[in-house]
Amino acid sequence: MAKKLNAVVGQSGGPTSVINQSLVGVIEEVRKHSHIDKLLGCRHGVRGIVNNDYIQLNDVPADLLEKIAGTPSSALGSSRDKPDAEYCRKIMKNFKENNVGYFFYIGGNDSADAARIVQEMAAAEGHELHVFHIPKTIDNDLKVHDHTPGFGSAAKFVASAIMGDNYDNASLPGIKVDVIMGRHAGFLTAASVLARQYDGDGPHLIYVPEAPMSEDKFLADVDRIYSKKGRCLIAVSEGISTPDGKTWAEKMSGDLEKDSHGNVQLSGTGALGDYLANLVTKKLNNPGGKKLRVRADTFGYLQRSFAGYVSETDAKEAREVARQAVRYSTDPSKLEGSVVMKRVSNSPYKIELDWTSIKNVARETKHLSAEYIKDGNDITQAFIDYAKPLVGALPVVGTFAEMRK
Amino acid sequence: MAKKLNAVVGQSGGPTSVINQSLVGVIEEVRKHSHIDKLLGCRHGVRGIVNNDYIQLNDVPADLLEKIAGTPSSALGSSRDKPDAEYCRKIMKNFKENNVGYFFYIGGNDSADAARIVQEMAAAEGHELHVFHIPKTIDNDLKVHDHTPGFGSAAKFVASAIMGDNYDNASLPGIKVDVIMGRHAGFLTAASVLARQYDGDGPHLIYVPEAPMSEDKFLADVDRIYSKKGRCLIAVSEGISTPDGKTWAEKMSGDLEKDSHGNVQLSGTGALGDYLANLVTKKLNNPGGKKLRVRADTFGYLQRSFAGYVSETDAKEAREVARQAVRYSTDPSKLEGSVVMKRVSNSPYKIELDWTSIKNVARETKHLSAEYIKDGNDITQAFIDYAKPLVGALPVVGTFAEMRK
Repeated sequence: MAKKLNAVVGQSGGPTSVINQSLVGVIEEVRKHSHIDKLLGCRHGVRGIVNNDYIQLNDVPADLLEKIAGTPSSALGSSRDKPDAEYCRKIMKNFKENNVGYFFYIGGNDSADAARIVQEMAAAEGHELHVFHIPKTIDNDLKVHDHTPGFGSAAKFVASAIMGDNYDNASLPGIKVDVIMGRHAGFLTAASVLARQYDGDGPHLIYVPEAPMSEDKFLADVDRIYSKKGRCLIAVSEGISTPDGKTWAEKMSGDLEKDSHGNVQLSGTGALGDYLANLVTKKLNNPGGKKLRVRADTFGYLQRSFAGYVSETDAKEAREVARQAVRYSTDPSKLEGSVVMKRVSNSPYKIELDWTSIKNVARETKHLSAEYIKDGNDITQAFIDYAKPLVGALPVVGTFAEMRK
Repeated sequence: MAKKLNAVVGQSGGPTSVINQSLVGVIEEVRKHSHIDKLLGCRHGVRGIVNNDYIQLNDVPADLLEKIAGTPSSALGSSRDKPDAEYCRKIMKNFKENNVGYFFYIGGNDSADAARIVQEMAAAEGHELHVFHIPKTIDNDLKVHDHTPGFGSAAKFVASAIMGDNYDNASLPGIKVDVIMGRHAGFLTAASVLARQYDGDGPHLIYVPEAPMSEDKFLADVDRIYSKKGRCLIAVSEGISTPDGKTWAEKMSGDLEKDSHGNVQLSGTGALGDYLANLVTKKLNNPGGKKLRVRADTFGYLQRSFAGYVSETDAKEAREVARQAVRYSTDPSKLEGSVVMKRVSNSPYKIELDWTSIKNVARETKHLSAEYIKDGNDITQAFIDYAKPLVGALPVVGTFAEMRK
């Protein structure tokens, strides 16, 4: 019998609240099978492979595993390195030296692409390497996938934050801009619509990258809502675009930091929110002689890493897709794949796990479909139906307005 | 027998996650007694009185009351109006017209001061008016009070956010600045210390308004931590001050918006966080040739209004102090008062409710005592002992570092 091969598991890209559920899913499932010898966790994604920086995960005590599963962010560390050919050769070299035959990579589309490159290089060199992509991204923007682990919890955070902020805004009326993550895809910003519980509840305007927004349209929208309601709560994606195909972030500054994937820094700064708030103050101030109260919050990293507040469905699914990746790896003929959730029923909500080739997921971005967007500033019931089961129960709230009905 | 008097209850200042618990406490307790006829909720604080904008609260259905109790922010609406003599005369006029003999005002020190002025005016005019202040502020800065309703829940939010962000920062190492509410008092920022669960956990630096911070000291602190740990998580109060007695906000801009209490706008903008992040980038960048990853988040209104995440102790106490205010009002000789929580034991945690004159609470700010601050950049165990029972259980987390011990 051939010598058993070792496996590497890694976490990549922006962390989520449930990415450790996936890591623990891999660890638990590997124990149930016998095809893998050592299970090595690479520290900080692919960088840990190149640096030969591993933690052996076969014997992590069960109680610690459960604690780690409930801990936000990537317990192995993450990385935004985008491996080039030279980088991939180093990965291959390490895999050979460590007798690694299985690579489980938990990440988004950039990470899937890195996994794909490594697998293709291994195939070209005749090294037996089984590469499985375990989906993860709060952006929910992977092709083929119905949705991705991490999204439900981030969406629950966003919906709960907007729900509370709606009542804050009702209490001290004004114009409030809330900036939500999502560079190219508006799923997370769209989830703010779930905050609406009663007539008149915000968000009153929702802007996603898929619906370009001009300055004039934005100001006209805000003015109309504020004139009617005396307040306006706006959910806006960090990646909103202008009709001429630029992002607002680019528009407002030519000097923003870029990461190694060529992405402009949009998170970890309040610049876009402050820019929009200042725009409203400058252009709409003093309606009827009254000074406008304009504020902006940028939800920032809290959306992906807040401790103790996850969607239970999301947490469960994040573990289950990882287990499925390990199950796929027991088939010697499966050299690669991404674990896909397919929705087979929405009411009751039910998914099935399925296989797709990594190349169908790698690099490309899934966008919010047109049926989810309304008038360029709102989100439809179809999206609510799509997102609700992923987020699960939201806080129960009440207002005196209900009494007067 | 004299005709029964009516009562007004209002909510004022910045909302909290549990201020509606206090409102519901008043409504429930009034029903148990017979000294009050109509219970009127004034919409948007004192402004609702002047505008004669009331909701009658005697018959709110119990299930709606429970929903409202669990809803963040002020269900009656809030106000930041600071009544002057003319404004107070209008309040008095309305109270006389509506036969109001009791006024329950839920708020912080500015609100307590407004309540005090109205009560003194009533006394001077010989109108029988019993005024009770029900404490509320996430800032926890009321004199005499051991702590204030609203603080525990905001502190739980901050601790959980920092806990998650610590693991985010460990996962993608860099320098992260988190800006936390607290204009003059550092209690809420200090609560970030509760996030530390294991050796090496952030926040690694904590800056509060009570410990003035120079630019040089800040940069030296960050440089030292980053050189040692390869990352640095910083919790900083929005109201941090400079050694020459200014706030950093003033230092960085002479042009900030002020509210009617003369306070500079610190919340609802990411400016301070971005300023500090840029300072670090400019002054510390390129240590050993490596580009620093510097980010800032401003927790903003989420700290006070996030739906579905409160401290249970805080929620219970917020309702209980309000009930006590109504009980005090059954004593015809008690013309005014603020309901105070006194800690009679810390382990097990136990409080008793007590009375103090509103004038002992009004206007002034309680600061973080020196025994809670360490080296101008950290918070002591004494503060942890003080704050822990108010916040309650935090999420259980784990790291692989624990395995290697």
